[in-house]
Amino acid sequence: MADKDCRENIIASAVPLFAAKGLNGVSVRELASAAGVNLSMISYYFGGKEGLYAAILTEQFAILRTLDEIDQMEIDTLQKFELYVRATVSRYRKNPYLLRFYTSELTNPTACFETIVKPAINKVVQMLLDNFTDGLSHKKFREDLDPADTVLALAGMINFYFLLEPATAELVDHTPERDEKLIRHIMDIFSRGILK
Amino acid sequence: MADKDCRENIIASAVPLFAAKGLNGVSVRELASAAGVNLSMISYYFGGKEGLYAAILTEQFAILRTLDEIDQMEIDTLQKFELYVRATVSRYRKNPYLLRFYTSELTNPTACFETIVKPAINKVVQMLLDNFTDGLSHKKFREDLDPADTVLALAGMINFYFLLEPATAELVDHTPERDEKLIRHIMDIFSRGILK
Repeated sequence: MADKDCRENIIASAVPLFAAKGLNGVSVRELASAAGVNLSMISYYFGGKEGLYAAILTEQFAILRTLDEIDQMEIDTLQKFELYVRATVSRYRKNPYLLRFYTSELTNPTACFETIVKPAINKVVQMLLDNFTDGLSHKKFREDLDPADTVLALAGMINFYFLLEPATAELVDHTPERDEKLIRHIMDIFSRGILK
Repeated sequence: MADKDCRENIIASAVPLFAAKGLNGVSVRELASAAGVNLSMISYYFGGKEGLYAAILTEQFAILRTLDEIDQMEIDTLQKFELYVRATVSRYRKNPYLLRFYTSELTNPTACFETIVKPAINKVVQMLLDNFTDGLSHKKFREDLDPADTVLALAGMINFYFLLEPATAELVDHTPERDEKLIRHIMDIFSRGILK
């Protein structure tokens, strides 16, 4: 197996293990056995279990950085908020493990929280805050709104929907086919709430 | 030590352990040692580790049931939504471990998810849905809103604020002194979003 394939194979088989048991709940032996490689390969490629976990978190949270692209676009501030909601839906749909790493790092942080997770989340919140300030300066949004509370409210509306999914499947239709309606609905409540 | 005290002592010292490491990450030996009791006391009082974990989850999610009281009140539907937000803030402030059990059960469910966690969450969502329907029938809320998306949006705005706290402390003032402002702010955005 080529170096790159072997590295990626280890990562791919480690993701569900770390997602289910956390950094401390998984042994190097388990990781090697899941990937079908020799124990020494974990340290060869990643310097050990912690290095492998850090590589995975970097990959998981790299998706957040794609939001930078939204920031660069020459579009209306409300459209930028909508693109953020869309990108959030899309990354949960594409990556079923993200939410586990996300909540586990927020509630039981490892060393990676300060180096990988927190900077990634801060970047998104800062992007949303800048967008809100931009809308304010163009007199689009209500001036009595607290910028931080406002953008966290938007983030909460969409992120929490996915977190609650396993508990509310009987009360709420969570199928991807309804995502478009959900996005428009959240943007509808949010824009009526913040527009002048 | 009286039976009740001993039982409560075991629970109190087990909460932080389970919150940090999950059901599978903690041994009966650790639990007994943290409580300063003999190993056999865990099975005597709880029938084992799983029973102790279930007792703790029942206690943690019992707080959700206090929301029933709100349901019984003879007040305006919008006020009921506000009381839900208030109760949510108050239970996170009073119980620093709730969020960890909450997110861990949602992303990596144990056997308790189906028996304790899911019914508790469903009860809250159902209460919010009933309240929304009530407001609709009194022509208070916009008819084009999806009831489930609307109440999950409200739940998301307040719950996610607490989940993100460790990551956004530098960008957002999360101190309890600001809770009142936060509650009013969320209700402000939400009511403009849903009122006719």
